[in-house]
Formats: sequence, C-alpha cells, structure tokens
Amino acid sequence: MQRYFIPPEQFGATEATIAGEDAHHLIHVMRARAGDSIIVSNGLNREALAQIASIGKNAVTVKLVEDLPMYAEPKAQVWIAQSLPKGDKMELVIQKGTEIGAARFVPFLSARTVVQYDAKKEAKRLERWRKIAKEAAEQAHRNLIPEVDAPVTWNQLLALAKEADLALLCYEKESNQKLKTVLKQAVEKRGGPDGMRILLAIGPEGGFTEREAEEAEREKFVTVGLGARILRTETAGIVGLTCILYETGEMGG
Amino acid sequence: MQRYFIPPEQFGATEATIAGEDAHHLIHVMRARAGDSIIVSNGLNREALAQIASIGKNAVTVKLVEDLPMYAEPKAQVWIAQSLPKGDKMELVIQKGTEIGAARFVPFLSARTVVQYDAKKEAKRLERWRKIAKEAAEQAHRNLIPEVDAPVTWNQLLALAKEADLALLCYEKESNQKLKTVLKQAVEKRGGPDGMRILLAIGPEGGFTEREAEEAEREKFVTVGLGARILRTETAGIVGLTCILYETGEMGG
Repeated sequence: MQRYFIPPEQFGATEATIAGEDAHHLIHVMRARAGDSIIVSNGLNREALAQIASIGKNAVTVKLVEDLPMYAEPKAQVWIAQSLPKGDKMELVIQKGTEIGAARFVPFLSARTVVQYDAKKEAKRLERWRKIAKEAAEQAHRNLIPEVDAPVTWNQLLALAKEADLALLCYEKESNQKLKTVLKQAVEKRGGPDGMRILLAIGPEGGFTEREAEEAEREKFVTVGLGARILRTETAGIVGLTCILYETGEMGG
Repeated sequence: MQRYFIPPEQFGATEATIAGEDAHHLIHVMRARAGDSIIVSNGLNREALAQIASIGKNAVTVKLVEDLPMYAEPKAQVWIAQSLPKGDKMELVIQKGTEIGAARFVPFLSARTVVQYDAKKEAKRLERWRKIAKEAAEQAHRNLIPEVDAPVTWNQLLALAKEADLALLCYEKESNQKLKTVLKQAVEKRGGPDGMRILLAIGPEGGFTEREAEEAEREKFVTVGLGARILRTETAGIVGLTCILYETGEMGG
C-alpha cells in the first residue's frame, strides 16, 4: 500500500491533507480515487490507515480509519556523522542509511575533507538531502523520517558527542578496540539498547588525521576499526550502521 | 602503497609483469619510476612487495622483494546471488560487496526479474562487472578478486545451493527464522567459519514469489528476514553480507 509522510500541521485528529509533490504523485502517478486506501504518517508519533475522502486540484483529503502500530524503528538511535564526501556520495549514505535504519545524519568538515564547502549552495543541497531521506523512509516503510543536519564543524561534532550515549570514530589505524566488544559493553552497561543514542563518525576519503583521532578520544569518542578491508568513505557508514543494528537485534536477529 | 592484481601467468617466482590498463595507470597516472615500491598480488595465493625494475612502453617489470601475509580475506566465503536489478544497480552490489568482503557474485533470473536479459550484451557487461570487482578489490586491499559469474537461471541457482554449507534466501514475508540464530547454529555446527561457503540469495525489485520461496526451501535454502524495514534489492545483499561477516568476527569483531 502506498505510504506518505505528512507534515504534523496537516495531520489532524480524524483527517489529514496531502499537498505538494505527494498530492501530485497520488493524483497523477498513482491515479488515486476517492475510497482508495493509503497509509499516512506524521513522521513523529502517529501512523494510520487512511481512506481518500476527496481529491482537489493540488491536494488530497484523507479520513483516518485506524491507527497503526509503529514497529519499524530500531530501538537504538544511530546518528551517522559523515565527513562530507566527494560528488553525490552523501546522497548514497542518506538513502541507504535511511533504508537500513539510521535516525539522524550529521555531515561535517574535517582536516582532510576534500570537497569545497559552499555555504551558498547549502540550503538547496540540504533540501535535496532531506527529500532523499523522506523518500527512502517511505520506501522502506519507516515510521519516522531521519533528521538531516546542516554541515557542522569538527568542534561542533566533538560537542555533539556529549549528547550521545556512545560515540564511535571509525579509524583504520585502530586495531585494539573491537567494535563488537565496545558495542556489547555499552549496551549491557545501559541495560539494553532502548532509546540509546549512538554516534558513528566516518572520516573523509583520506581518513581522519592522527590529531583528530586524539582529540576525539579526549572527547569521549571510542576509536574502532571495521575489519581488515579498507572501505570507501561512503561505504563505512552503511556498514557500521548495519553492524550496530545487527548487534542490537534489529536485522532479523 | 599502490596495489595491482596481476594475472597468474604474468606472475613469476622472482618477478612479474604489469601490462594493459594497469601499466598505463602506473606509468601515466602514478608516474612511477624504476626503484618505486608497489604491492602486487596474483589474486589467488600470493601477494608481494615489489620494486619496479624497468618501465617499457606498455609494460612494467617488477622484482618481487618480499612475500606478504594474506590476512584481508574473511574466513567464511559469502556468495551473493542477486536477481538482476534494474539500471546499473548490479555495479553497486559488486563494488560495495567486494569492499565489504564477498567472495563471489552470482547474478540470476527469477520470476519477477524486471530487466530484459540480453544475451548479446552479456559478454561486455560481464567484463565490466569483473573490472569493477578487480578495482574495488585493489582499493579495499583485498588479497583476492571475487568471482563474478555470468547470469544463471533460477534452477541453476537452486542447484548451486548444494555446493554451499549454508544457503539463505532473503524473504520479507518470513519472520520465523532469525538470521542471527540461523547463522550462529550453522557456524557452530561446522565448528567455526573457516572455509565455510554461505550463499545469500536476494530477490529482484518485486521480491521472490511464494512459489520460489517454497522451491528454495525444498532445495536446502533457509528463508530469513533482514529486519522490519524494507530494503531495496541492491541494499539487501550489502546488508546481509555485513551481518554474516559481523557474526563471523570479520567487522572489527
């Protein structure tokens, strides 16, 4: 069944309004008719089976028929902090990370970030990233749309680690700290993964500098490796996220 | 250090010859000189530190200085069987799967395969897929290049399952068999993951049919789910592979 995220302000107690591109999609691509059933979510805390009540020129009104259980969100919230990669790789990270179950994306700039950061283009790019997150969340039957932050500095990332229950820095030179051991201990210490916030920081194409790894370790980050093979920057987040969700019982565990 | 896979026939006891595109890359892109060090692998059972002895017009001769340990290959061999996806998604599966650690890719056709299979174009496409596997293996510092088979039929895939120690079929309707439980039991039964061959079959965009799931189960496949979120076909293999390698201790476990 077709699924749409609807902004909370358009999501009432008994009915909701679908507007903009989603309305266009529903009317012209899906050729929906009054009486058709769809699933709608406010992207926060409510998801419902809905029936199309009326179709206007640019909007569709639906009647909420039945609240649905929200079971598609992982118990642990994984925040993928990704040093801005080249080309359109951030889009791949957001699309795949959303499908797999990330809760938040935090692009950041670090010493070896290759791309030229262009503040002027930021608003447009951020809008595009959020659209990709929304569409991937709909496709994956997520209950929530992951947040996508505007790019932050290295120091802001270090500060963000304080808000997380566990902060991991993928560092290929690190071979002492085993990801599995670190995860198991952190989950156990917390009495389970429910509501746990795990920040997973991935370096740019050239990796983190030694100095960055040291600074991160001083600010509560644990440096971990992801095995003997060298992963591209856009692959590391997807793989690290999958490992965390597997360990916390979310991948058919 | 730059790494190249060299066909075994060009890989001697004390020296090796780099030809073709790799020679071009080494001479014109890397601007290599006699005396420079590189790493060469025959892609099978030998990897060595080498020193460039001479640079010809289309070939580079290297002296093998020291054999290197081959530690980058996972203990378990994971074969990703992927029902041919649309567009260039098979390339993403091969590139990312190679980085993560797959041993073999088996494209196949199933009831809901959307793409038109074109036998005429097959040779060219297979060549391209193998090139992607080679380049991703070099980049990821793999010791071996994963095999990429030519596309097989559904019945050939069922027959291939007999050669595997464990055959898994990702099936979203399945919620009884837990991937983690199935993996743990199979690894334990075998006394460890060493040399274990695990076939992981992923359906096309529309998934496997009920009939295919039944046929697969009759032919030793175990159907498993990959969690509550619906993964795109090109994401499922990457995620399933990561889970298997995490469980067998390869992802920094």
